[in-house]
Amino acid sequence: MQAARVEGYLATCLAGRGIPPRLQSAMEYSLLAGGKRLRPVLCLSTAGMTGLDPMSVMPFAAAIELIHTYSLIHDDLPAMDDDDLRRGRPSNHRQFDEATAILAGDGLLTDAFDLMASVGGGIPAGHVLAALREVSSAAGSSGMVGGQALDMDYTGRDDIDLAALRTMHAMKTGALIRCSCVAGALLGGAPASAVEQVAGYGAAIGAAFQIVDDILDETGDEAQLGKPVGSDVEQGKVTYPSLLGIERSRALAQEQADIAVTCLADFEGEDADFLRALAQYIVDRVS
Amino acid sequence: MQAARVEGYLATCLAGRGIPPRLQSAMEYSLLAGGKRLRPVLCLSTAGMTGLDPMSVMPFAAAIELIHTYSLIHDDLPAMDDDDLRRGRPSNHRQFDEATAILAGDGLLTDAFDLMASVGGGIPAGHVLAALREVSSAAGSSGMVGGQALDMDYTGRDDIDLAALRTMHAMKTGALIRCSCVAGALLGGAPASAVEQVAGYGAAIGAAFQIVDDILDETGDEAQLGKPVGSDVEQGKVTYPSLLGIERSRALAQEQADIAVTCLADFEGEDADFLRALAQYIVDRVS
Repeated sequence: MQAARVEGYLATCLAGRGIPPRLQSAMEYSLLAGGKRLRPVLCLSTAGMTGLDPMSVMPFAAAIELIHTYSLIHDDLPAMDDDDLRRGRPSNHRQFDEATAILAGDGLLTDAFDLMASVGGGIPAGHVLAALREVSSAAGSSGMVGGQALDMDYTGRDDIDLAALRTMHAMKTGALIRCSCVAGALLGGAPASAVEQVAGYGAAIGAAFQIVDDILDETGDEAQLGKPVGSDVEQGKVTYPSLLGIERSRALAQEQADIAVTCLADFEGEDADFLRALAQYIVDRVS
Repeated sequence: MQAARVEGYLATCLAGRGIPPRLQSAMEYSLLAGGKRLRPVLCLSTAGMTGLDPMSVMPFAAAIELIHTYSLIHDDLPAMDDDDLRRGRPSNHRQFDEATAILAGDGLLTDAFDLMASVGGGIPAGHVLAALREVSSAAGSSGMVGGQALDMDYTGRDDIDLAALRTMHAMKTGALIRCSCVAGALLGGAPASAVEQVAGYGAAIGAAFQIVDDILDETGDEAQLGKPVGSDVEQGKVTYPSLLGIERSRALAQEQADIAVTCLADFEGEDADFLRALAQYIVDRVS
């Protein structure tokens, strides 16, 4: 339901901005390639849980999907993971060209901050700034970008232990998922204690999500993944299953989902119920 | 004077953030490679001209230099302009590697928004948001990133006229220079009429700056440029001298500097005097 609204917003949010046509096509090619819209839905839901009309924060929530999309485009580049396929279609630089893919990513990242700063709906500017800072910090060089740098560094090495893997994933994928949750609460002006609980939820489902992703890369099918099975192992990536095996990885994902549910114990209502169910849903994909 | 303070701030602004060491080295390699720090100085000066203590907006002003630096790193990439040299040293991807250069750029761009959002000094959050939005809009897909996309598209073509060249440069280099001026005025809470005058100044010196840059690419020396003379022509770039010749290009730059000075006619004091002198200084580099 909320994912469909996000989809509708994403379909039009780049229109009428005066973007050169080919660049806009490249940005929309990846932005509108489907996906679960997990991060915006998290942001909308925590905003709702802390008292806002979720729809009032749509530009902000959608902006996080722009950031997620840019990261996929740049991660797929020849100099990075060199992936030809993304969600069953040619990756951005294969569909367009490398320069256009770099610029499409740069454009999505920058425009995301424009969307965030433009959120209206009577939300105090101080709340918007606090939420924006949470996102910039999670997406930047000590968050997602730093995690990707570590991922490149770790690929092909055999001395990476579970602690290093966890830190890398907490930066590379966890930080953006966590901040999606925190941003909604900050936009809603939630008190510090509530923000902390929401942050705990976000960190736990972020961890669960990554473990599940690693498991699916070994056990999923190509249609489900949109890319060849086992591509992590082929690229020499360290994964949870490669360190722990499938069964212990599954148990670890379930443990994280349980932690997530516990973090939201103080919250009631439809959005809180949805977020609790979501935590289990993430793990059920591999159970 | 202000440039030295910017330099000092830039030297420490990435420290202690938990950035993976190699990534931080790559970011600082390009960020601390010298340069005139034109954009931060413009932001500090217009903030001062509209009543703020310039030093109170330093994180914001410095952030614009991070954005400028990221754009240079990505523009130099093999898939883009494929430049081996920048300011007389190996370009980022030559000094490190291509993946690191892409991530260093991504990190600088994202961290810039973190710096902008962190500006304190009692500046109202609404002013910060307005200024941040000006920067995101100028740097994004309908500004700097879009201009670079057009530049790639125009390279090697012989059907680009002066109007197209002007639009491309207004996006690629003009927008960030203009927004550096506007952001300072918005942070200072200047009235709309003053913001408009400052915007006019910024647009005019942005245009002058680009024309001068094109002229220097033909008439400068390698030591001054930090790269081979004539590289624009060699790459098949359309430039002001290639369309108008050197003399008419010089006259056009002077015309823009004069417009810039006129835009500031209503402003008095040290910062306004500095900005007027700066407009002429830009043109004097090629006179």
